[in-house]
Amino acid sequence: MADTALAASSTPSGPSAAPAAPDFSGWTCPAPLRDHERIVMGHGGGGTLSAELVEHLFAPAFGSDVLAELGDSAHLTMGGAQLAFSTDSFVVRPLFFPGGSIGDLAVNGTVNDLAMVGAVPAYLSCGFILEEGIELSVVGRVAQALGDAARTAGVTVATGDTKVVDAGHGDGIFINTAGIGLVPDGVDIRPQRAAPGDAVLVSGEIGVHGVAIMSVREGLEFGVEIQSDTASLAGMVADMLAVCPDLHVLRDPTRGGLATSLNEIAGAAGVGITLDERALPVPDTVANACSFLGLDPLYVANEGKLVAFVPPDHADAVLETMRAHPLGKQSVRIGSCREDHPGMVVAATGLGGTRVVDMPLGEQLPRIC
Amino acid sequence: MADTALAASSTPSGPSAAPAAPDFSGWTCPAPLRDHERIVMGHGGGGTLSAELVEHLFAPAFGSDVLAELGDSAHLTMGGAQLAFSTDSFVVRPLFFPGGSIGDLAVNGTVNDLAMVGAVPAYLSCGFILEEGIELSVVGRVAQALGDAARTAGVTVATGDTKVVDAGHGDGIFINTAGIGLVPDGVDIRPQRAAPGDAVLVSGEIGVHGVAIMSVREGLEFGVEIQSDTASLAGMVADMLAVCPDLHVLRDPTRGGLATSLNEIAGAAGVGITLDERALPVPDTVANACSFLGLDPLYVANEGKLVAFVPPDHADAVLETMRAHPLGKQSVRIGSCREDHPGMVVAATGLGGTRVVDMPLGEQLPRIC
Repeated sequence: MADTALAASSTPSGPSAAPAAPDFSGWTCPAPLRDHERIVMGHGGGGTLSAELVEHLFAPAFGSDVLAELGDSAHLTMGGAQLAFSTDSFVVRPLFFPGGSIGDLAVNGTVNDLAMVGAVPAYLSCGFILEEGIELSVVGRVAQALGDAARTAGVTVATGDTKVVDAGHGDGIFINTAGIGLVPDGVDIRPQRAAPGDAVLVSGEIGVHGVAIMSVREGLEFGVEIQSDTASLAGMVADMLAVCPDLHVLRDPTRGGLATSLNEIAGAAGVGITLDERALPVPDTVANACSFLGLDPLYVANEGKLVAFVPPDHADAVLETMRAHPLGKQSVRIGSCREDHPGMVVAATGLGGTRVVDMPLGEQLPRIC
Repeated sequence: MADTALAASSTPSGPSAAPAAPDFSGWTCPAPLRDHERIVMGHGGGGTLSAELVEHLFAPAFGSDVLAELGDSAHLTMGGAQLAFSTDSFVVRPLFFPGGSIGDLAVNGTVNDLAMVGAVPAYLSCGFILEEGIELSVVGRVAQALGDAARTAGVTVATGDTKVVDAGHGDGIFINTAGIGLVPDGVDIRPQRAAPGDAVLVSGEIGVHGVAIMSVREGLEFGVEIQSDTASLAGMVADMLAVCPDLHVLRDPTRGGLATSLNEIAGAAGVGITLDERALPVPDTVANACSFLGLDPLYVANEGKLVAFVPPDHADAVLETMRAHPLGKQSVRIGSCREDHPGMVVAATGLGGTRVVDMPLGEQLPRIC
C-alpha cells in the first residue's frame, strides 16, 4: 500500500471531496504557474492563464514540439498525405442559445480550426460526456444539430464515444470533437508567417457569439435578439485560397476574441499590428450590451468569423472574395502588420490617440463554447 | 422570442435545474429508446443500452455509414493514405488507482482502439475538461502520466484543448483523446471477418482493471493488491501481424468485458462462438473479488488485454508470438468460432454443461474508464 499510485488514490478527485493541502509530491509546479495552487475559470479562458498552462504544464509533460506551436491545428504527414489535426471540447451554457446549440459549436469550432491552416475538413470524431438524468430528447436534439452542422460543413462524423457520469458530476452534455483535414499542396498558413506590410482583414461583425450567450444566460434583453454567428468558415477559406494561395495567417477569434488572436499572432511572428479602431465592425447591439456589461467587444468570442493576414498586393482581391461569400458580406480591412512595436497590438482610437490592446489574463465570459 | 432555438434555451441544462417534463418537440424519440426518457448510467456502460443509443439516436442524427459500423476505429482514406481514426472520453473515478491513472487510460484506451484494426498509432489529440478548484498538482501529475504513457506507446500528442467548468459542474478531470494511425497495406481486421474455424485467443488474465478500480473505490481489500493492466497493445499487435498478416478480428475487451466483445463480434459476423470456461484465465484475486461483489469476470473491464480471431492454420504461431511478448505471457486459446448458434456466445462450463453468455444490458461497474 506504499506505492505512489496507491498513495495518490487518496487524493480528492475534485472539490466535492474534503479539501486537502495541495500535494506536490512527485510533481514540481513550474515557477510561472505558482500564483495558483488550483485551477481557476481563467485557465480555460484562452488568455494568458490558458497559454501558461499549455506552455509550462502540458507541453513539457507531453514533450511534444508539435503541441508547443500552439496553433489552431497540428500539421501531420502520414503515408505521404499532408494532414491537419485539431481538437476542442465544448462546455457551453446553456446548451441551446439564439442561433445555435452546443451541437453546432462542436462541429463548427473544430472545422474552423482545420480551415485556419487552409485544410479541407473531412472527418470528425465525437465524444459525448452525458450527465445521468438528462432528458433523452435534449441529447437527441443536440445530436441532430450536430449532424445537421456536419452536413452543412461537408464533414463526416466517423467515430464516436459516449460516457455517462453520475448526476451532480457533470453538466448535462459536454462534447469533444477532433477533426482531420487535408492540407492542399503549397498552402502554408500559420501565425509565424505574419509579415510587415500584410493587410489585416476581418470577415464581419465581431463580438456577436459572446453577447448572444450572455443575453440568454443572464436573462438580459438588449432590444433586439442577438443570434450567435456559429458557422463553418471552410467554404470561405477555400474561395480565399483560390485567389491567393499564399495567405499568410488565418485565425478564428473565439475565446478571448479578436484581441487575443491578434496578440498571439504578433507574438508568434515578432511583428507589430496596428488596428484602426473606427474600422472595427461592432454592431450597435453588441456595443450596447458590452457597454452595459463592462466588456470590450475586442475580447468577446466569435464563432463564425476569421481574421486574415494577406500580402498587400492580394489584399483587395481577397477582400472582394470574402465579401462575395454569404458569411463574409461585411468583411473589412481593420489594420496592418508592421515592423515597429514587435509583439504588440496598437489601436488608433476614434479620438485620434492610440492604445495598447493587451492579451487578456483570464476569462471575462466563462463557458462561452 | 418564438423561434425554436430560443424556446429551447429555457430547457434545463441538467438535473441541477428544476425538473421539467421531457420536451420532445422538434425531435421524435426512436421507438427502441422509449423505455427511458432520461439518460441512465447504463447508457455509458458499453452494453445493449449504449449500443441502442448509438444505433437509434447518434447514427441516424449523424447520418454516417462509417459510424454505424460500431467498430473500435473508423477506416479512412485520405490523400492516398489508409488511416484509422478513433476517440474515447475518460471519466474514471478515482483519477489515480493501483497500476495507473486517468492519464494512462487516456493514451492506452485510444491507442488500443487503433491497434485493434491493425493500425500503427501515430498521433493523439487531447482535450481536458477541468473542474474549477482542482489542484494544479493533480493536473500536473495526470499530464505527466499521459505524456509518459504516450512515449511508451510511441505516439505523439499533436494537438490539445483545455476547458474549465465551474466547481460542482464537473468531476476533477475528464479527458478526451482521439487518435490517428496508419493501416499497413493488406491488413483488414474487423468484427465482420470472424469465420467458422477461427481460433479465439486471449492475451492474458481477464477482469483485472475493473477489480482494481472497484477495490480502491469501495475501499475493499482482497488480500493482495490488484493492479490495473492498463497498457498499449500496439507492439504486440505488430508482432502478431508479422507472423499472420491475415488476422481476422482483434478487440480489446474494455467496458462490458470479454462477454460484450464476443457478443458484438458474433453479431457482426453472424457466427457462433464457443468458449471453454475452464480455459479462461481468471486470477484468484479477481475470482474472489467478483464472487464477493456478485460480478462475473467475463463482464469486467480490461485495459491491457486483447482477444484475437485467428485462422486455424496460424493459431499456434500467433499464440506463440503473443506469449513471447511481455504483455502476452499468459495468452491462451479460450474457444473457437463456429457455424452453429449464429450471433450467440456459448460457454462450456466446468461442470460439463453449457450456458449462454449474453450481452449485458447496461453497467455493472460505472466510470471504470
